Amino acid sequence: MSMLVVGSVALDTVKTIHGEREEDLGGSASYFSVAARHFRPVSMVAVVGEDFPPEHLGFFRERDIDTSGLVAASGKTFRWGGVYGADGNTRETLFTHLNVFADFSPQLTAAHRDCDHVFLANIHPDLQRSVLDQVKRPRLVVLDTMNYWIEGTRDSLLATLGRVDTVLLNEEEARMLTGETNLIRAARAVLDLGPSLAVIKKGEHGSLVVSNRFLFSAPSFPVESVWDPTGAGDTFAGGFVGYLAASGEEGSESEIRKATIYGTVLASFTVESFGLERLGRVSREEIEERYGEIERLTRF
Amino acid sequence: MSMLVVGSVALDTVKTIHGEREEDLGGSASYFSVAARHFRPVSMVAVVGEDFPPEHLGFFRERDIDTSGLVAASGKTFRWGGVYGADGNTRETLFTHLNVFADFSPQLTAAHRDCDHVFLANIHPDLQRSVLDQVKRPRLVVLDTMNYWIEGTRDSLLATLGRVDTVLLNEEEARMLTGETNLIRAARAVLDLGPSLAVIKKGEHGSLVVSNRFLFSAPSFPVESVWDPTGAGDTFAGGFVGYLAASGEEGSESEIRKATIYGTVLASFTVESFGLERLGRVSREEIEERYGEIERLTRF
Repeated sequence: MSMLVVGSVALDTVKTIHGEREEDLGGSASYFSVAARHFRPVSMVAVVGEDFPPEHLGFFRERDIDTSGLVAASGKTFRWGGVYGADGNTRETLFTHLNVFADFSPQLTAAHRDCDHVFLANIHPDLQRSVLDQVKRPRLVVLDTMNYWIEGTRDSLLATLGRVDTVLLNEEEARMLTGETNLIRAARAVLDLGPSLAVIKKGEHGSLVVSNRFLFSAPSFPVESVWDPTGAGDTFAGGFVGYLAASGEEGSESEIRKATIYGTVLASFTVESFGLERLGRVSREEIEERYGEIERLTRF
Repeated sequence: MSMLVVGSVALDTVKTIHGEREEDLGGSASYFSVAARHFRPVSMVAVVGEDFPPEHLGFFRERDIDTSGLVAASGKTFRWGGVYGADGNTRETLFTHLNVFADFSPQLTAAHRDCDHVFLANIHPDLQRSVLDQVKRPRLVVLDTMNYWIEGTRDSLLATLGRVDTVLLNEEEARMLTGETNLIRAARAVLDLGPSLAVIKKGEHGSLVVSNRFLFSAPSFPVESVWDPTGAGDTFAGGFVGYLAASGEEGSESEIRKATIYGTVLASFTVESFGLERLGRVSREEIEERYGEIERLTRF
């Protein structure tokens, strides 16, 4: 029973103050899988075009990521381009060429329908529900979304939110979704929409985890040079869901706290390089080392 | 040997989404003292005008705050007016009438010169140095400042920074002072200017404490309704310096971590009401209760 991610595989062109990369491997399913595979086998459901470089497939397979759900459709691979401000906190999208991703309609294999843990990455909430219609009896469903769906397909998103366990949002998304400025109130308002857990990601300020039973505040890992923030959120999700999947105690407060720290740790590697460069070669030992550093960072 | 704060006592007119207050007791020395007195005797050095309401003096004295250094000068008391945005994170100053504060020139009594712990609140860095010229052998000197001095009196501020142990800055001030966007790099650059400890206050995102030996990340206390943020920074300073003064181990990493949490706790009471209303009646039991809540908030 593997962990399943349904999302995008893309070719990203990114510019930051540290330089520029063209058509690097990216996409939510990519970052999630490369992080989550440290904890438990992971399967990706996504679509690429005929032009998708075979070495990227090799990259996934070398890391034991199941790509049997990665469909090659006729057409071009999804491409995204963006430029980040000096602090890495602001970004401008230069182009979004959906290409084959425009017609993405996730079809799960029999094996994938048996998955225990599902991460619904940032795709149309209709598609997220179609995935939920296909999976059999998942122990944990975690959802990501973005402003675009909150504004443009609100009703569909609300229908999807009613069917998931955990939702990951950044500050702006949480405020936009709920109309609440205060983040704790925003998180509680998210819980009123169905999920039992809301994780508010605050970038360099860490994250806030809110359930009806507890609050958890996690710092970010202290990265002194943010090279490229692309994929940090999906990497966080990979560490978070991956750890909980391995733990098997998805509802445990103490495991949720630890999972948040693993998500934080994994994301810190992602932002230290362009694309998947650093995350792709991180070892479990390095992960545990940073976990210990966050313990020392927060202890009092 | 008491703890000394040199700063302002003011009458504040504040407007937030929760309402408006006219000429409430405020000022950096006021907030600091009312917080710090929970840990150790505190003396304030400040100036008020002939119009300063006697009940405010009573308010300090009822709380065992030494007001022998609170000079009544001929003229009017310092008045400040401001309005906060809906999230409490933005504020606009409506007026600043320095009045008697314009000619403030702190003169310490013999008893005050013997103080062990000094908080130099946000005043002209020349005046901060004049205080340092008067105190004998303090164990700990903590400095606060603001954009106005960083931009307008930079050389004087740098001269003062070379003589203090700890500096408290908010994010914007840290970036402006050092030219570094990344907060950890900014904090390290502050250490290069002289202090051995930099505390970066991030409002609702908590604080980051940086020395050459360790990093500590503290969350904010989860306040769901920020009533009035005025004085939160000075209250934090009061809890921080007060705890360290009582501890007597100003250089201890573990005591500095605890002091940061006490600062955080005290500040959380300040923002829960207009002015000093809530902070003025908080008990040591309530302080310890919130300290425990932050332990639970951050534990993993």
